[in-house]
Amino acid sequence: MTKTARPASESYAETTHLVLPNDTNTLGNLFGGQLLKWLDISCAISAHRHCKRLTVTVAVNHVGFDRPIKLGDFVTIKSHVSRGFSTSMEVWADVWVEDQLTGEKIKANSAIYTFVAIDQAGRSISVPDVLPGNEEEQKRYDGALRRRQLRLILSGKMKAADATELKALFD
Amino acid sequence: MTKTARPASESYAETTHLVLPNDTNTLGNLFGGQLLKWLDISCAISAHRHCKRLTVTVAVNHVGFDRPIKLGDFVTIKSHVSRGFSTSMEVWADVWVEDQLTGEKIKANSAIYTFVAIDQAGRSISVPDVLPGNEEEQKRYDGALRRRQLRLILSGKMKAADATELKALFD
Amino acid sequence: MTKTARPASESYAETTHLVLPNDTNTLGNLFGGQLLKWLDISCAISAHRHCKRLTVTVAVNHVGFDRPIKLGDFVTIKSHVSRGFSTSMEVWADVWVEDQLTGEKIKANSAIYTFVAIDQAGRSISVPDVLPGNEEEQKRYDGALRRRQLRLILSGKMKAADATELKALFD
Amino acid sequence: MTKTARPASESYAETTHLVLPNDTNTLGNLFGGQLLKWLDISCAISAHRHCKRLTVTVAVNHVGFDRPIKLGDFVTIKSHVSRGFSTSMEVWADVWVEDQLTGEKIKANSAIYTFVAIDQAGRSISVPDVLPGNEEEQKRYDGALRRRQLRLILSGKMKAADATELKALFD
Amino acid sequence: MTKTARPASESYAETTHLVLPNDTNTLGNLFGGQLLKWLDISCAISAHRHCKRLTVTVAVNHVGFDRPIKLGDFVTIKSHVSRGFSTSMEVWADVWVEDQLTGEKIKANSAIYTFVAIDQAGRSISVPDVLPGNEEEQKRYDGALRRRQLRLILSGKMKAADATELKALFD
Amino acid sequence: MTKTARPASESYAETTHLVLPNDTNTLGNLFGGQLLKWLDISCAISAHRHCKRLTVTVAVNHVGFDRPIKLGDFVTIKSHVSRGFSTSMEVWADVWVEDQLTGEKIKANSAIYTFVAIDQAGRSISVPDVLPGNEEEQKRYDGALRRRQLRLILSGKMKAADATELKALFD
Repeated sequence: MTKTARPASESYAETTHLVLPNDTNTLGNLFGGQLLKWLDISCAISAHRHCKRLTVTVAVNHVGFDRPIKLGDFVTIKSHVSRGFSTSMEVWADVWVEDQLTGEKIKANSAIYTFVAIDQAGRSISVPDVLPGNEEEQKRYDGALRRRQLRLILSGKMKAADATELKALFD
Repeated sequence: MTKTARPASESYAETTHLVLPNDTNTLGNLFGGQLLKWLDISCAISAHRHCKRLTVTVAVNHVGFDRPIKLGDFVTIKSHVSRGFSTSMEVWADVWVEDQLTGEKIKANSAIYTFVAIDQAGRSISVPDVLPGNEEEQKRYDGALRRRQLRLILSGKMKAADATELKALFD
Repeated sequence: MTKTARPASESYAETTHLVLPNDTNTLGNLFGGQLLKWLDISCAISAHRHCKRLTVTVAVNHVGFDRPIKLGDFVTIKSHVSRGFSTSMEVWADVWVEDQLTGEKIKANSAIYTFVAIDQAGRSISVPDVLPGNEEEQKRYDGALRRRQLRLILSGKMKAADATELKALFD
Repeated sequence: MTKTARPASESYAETTHLVLPNDTNTLGNLFGGQLLKWLDISCAISAHRHCKRLTVTVAVNHVGFDRPIKLGDFVTIKSHVSRGFSTSMEVWADVWVEDQLTGEKIKANSAIYTFVAIDQAGRSISVPDVLPGNEEEQKRYDGALRRRQLRLILSGKMKAADATELKALFD
Repeated sequence: MTKTARPASESYAETTHLVLPNDTNTLGNLFGGQLLKWLDISCAISAHRHCKRLTVTVAVNHVGFDRPIKLGDFVTIKSHVSRGFSTSMEVWADVWVEDQLTGEKIKANSAIYTFVAIDQAGRSISVPDVLPGNEEEQKRYDGALRRRQLRLILSGKMKAADATELKALFD
Repeated sequence: MTKTARPASESYAETTHLVLPNDTNTLGNLFGGQLLKWLDISCAISAHRHCKRLTVTVAVNHVGFDRPIKLGDFVTIKSHVSRGFSTSMEVWADVWVEDQLTGEKIKANSAIYTFVAIDQAGRSISVPDVLPGNEEEQKRYDGALRRRQLRLILSGKMKAADATELKALFD
């Protein structure tokens, strides 16, 4: 039985962190591993809000660190589920840094994670699909299938020849 | 001036962690975000050992979580630089879990990160290439160019049409 | 020179935490001290957003813990500045717990902190007042003066006889 | 059946912390939220020593941060139960900072928390009253009733008109 | 110039910790490494109180873990300087666990650390000796010289033949 | 029934840590207590690998801190079981710091811990002895008996007169 698709907006999670000394590397910038941990928690909350079940990370598809984030900065992470497959979900997170004087928020980077929903015995269970609500959500929804094929190829679970969606990208 | 390529073996870093309550999720398994943090530190050490300079994470290319890791498990992370580009390095990390009775180590997952070397002012500087020393290192070296193109496409810095190495995969 | 009052809505900060084993007491509930730390960070972000300056906590006026919060719960903290005095700001934070099945958010407790803005030398500086934008913000704005008198009496900086606003409460 | 009152001195708890980089804000001072966490633990120990039962925080009545505390400072927290009501206890904590050269201890601030004792099912149970042993303990004991009325008014559980003890303060 | 000896009592430091999930191993007992960290901080405070200078750990002479400490236990560490040598100090710490019902404190183990005082450039500087004030402090003072010889032998800085005090133990 | 001795090499554990701000004292050096915690975890892994059972720390016999370790340094801990007694094991750990420019590793200090293996009820159980495989392992094996006698004397469990192995050191 197919579950009804849910609006992407229902899975939005927002978290603002203050970068403390504990979170920085020797340059006084936010340490990459700490941001990866925060991103994982935000994506886990979005994944749960989408399917209302226990969820676990199965893959990080891509995270880009485009701008250094400083000690004392406010970092806002906004995440949402971009597409649901049979038992897995792609989750996007955007990272914003807030200018201390103007309050302007600048996008520092984005991340794409994959989660599955599981039951108490740890078996994966089916999840609803996503209804995109705006242009960006639609674009992420459309690209999710290609990224899924990429992930399965990278982890040796799919052959390149079978990745028809991805292949079309290069035609 | 080109720097001399260095053997992959010089950048190996090994770390064994004991999974404590602090590191687990509500199922009593190692929390994904904590493993991402440990992986980032191990890869940073490998990146530094390869180029002997300050290094920072610029991307996570792929991490797969294939097996749950339990409270009390010993987790061994082994990482090494797989290829050097002009200013960036691809770093691989393998995660092994140790059977508590037999001592056998089972591979739980793998991760691929990208680091750059920077000077004190934060500008990226050139890094040496890698000399693969065995079959696996060679295979990872060969695939690194394709993964780099993937990463640049995913972050919007390259067009699919220009990713000739990657394109060849689908021909 | 008086600074222009700013809408309460500009200072809103939202953060969702996942309660991990690290955050719990021996009953498996969120540990009071951990929640106080999270509340302080959220209020600090609101205080900063209101005045765009360094801010430090000067007092906790009141925090009530009305419902136990469980391991694995999602806890959402929403905070905003409720009133600005000459150099101090009252900041309110509400704590919501999310039902794991329905996604319904239930209010678990509220907190009232006081912050001051400081310059680099650590001297307190003037802050703008707040423009309430709805009924609740107005109610909190109106009560802030009485709570300020309470706080000054409790810390021995004002005599009960001078707390005219507060006195009116009992007439 | 009423429990026998216990001397305040039996509930004293003392803890000295060294302020490490992990505990500081971006000014290099002890972070307010970290101190609130330490205060909560100390008060929990005092509450337990008074009634020998599981205890949980129900409110923070007041905390004042009067002096900045620096990285590297020794911070001593001394707490004790100041009064027992039917099922709740008021707990005071004083914070002392130690001069690095003379060893002199200067009072940095005070805190007032409220705890309840609970059984294994989480139901609140009766607690003994406190026997003050010196002038300060007596003063705190006497003021506890007024602060309790304040707390109940602030959390909407009592009407100002019924707070007879508190009202007397303003006559 | 010799510094005046100071009473052992001036260097006493006391800290009570609540064992939280974060501090336990997979058996639900206090993790050895965590206790070693707490002991080090308490001894550092005692060393500082004795000489009023920056101090750093140079050795752990002996720590015995005689009783398991449980999740939820209150652990009280009391430390004091037992003897001052030219530039180093021996510091003792005793660990007490509190019975949750009777409040009785039972000694769980003891630890002996060695600290040196240093100036801003990191050079070791002379420290005052200790005046024992009771029988136990006297006994610890007397044994300190033998333990110092043991430590120097164990770290290869003294030959057994030169350890006259220690030798006498076996005659 | 006696268990078969196992090669020392089977119990080797290696971990590389990056010293983050969180791990440093007010001088910007690795905090002694943090290193003790890392040493304890590494030794616990070695003890487990030797006997494949739950193990707990019973004593720290000796740790020397000979060189300060700086923020940003890579610290490599290598540990192994040096000798097995009836129910306890001596475990050695060596600490290496890596020169940031040359990659050369310099020995910063050594540590000696004692662990016991326990069953699920917490009772100590017999452990195999160690087969030294090189000169250093042999030297550590030979000295272990003397250090065990020292530890038992220091904790009041053996009289000096009975420590025949140790006594021979001074003849």
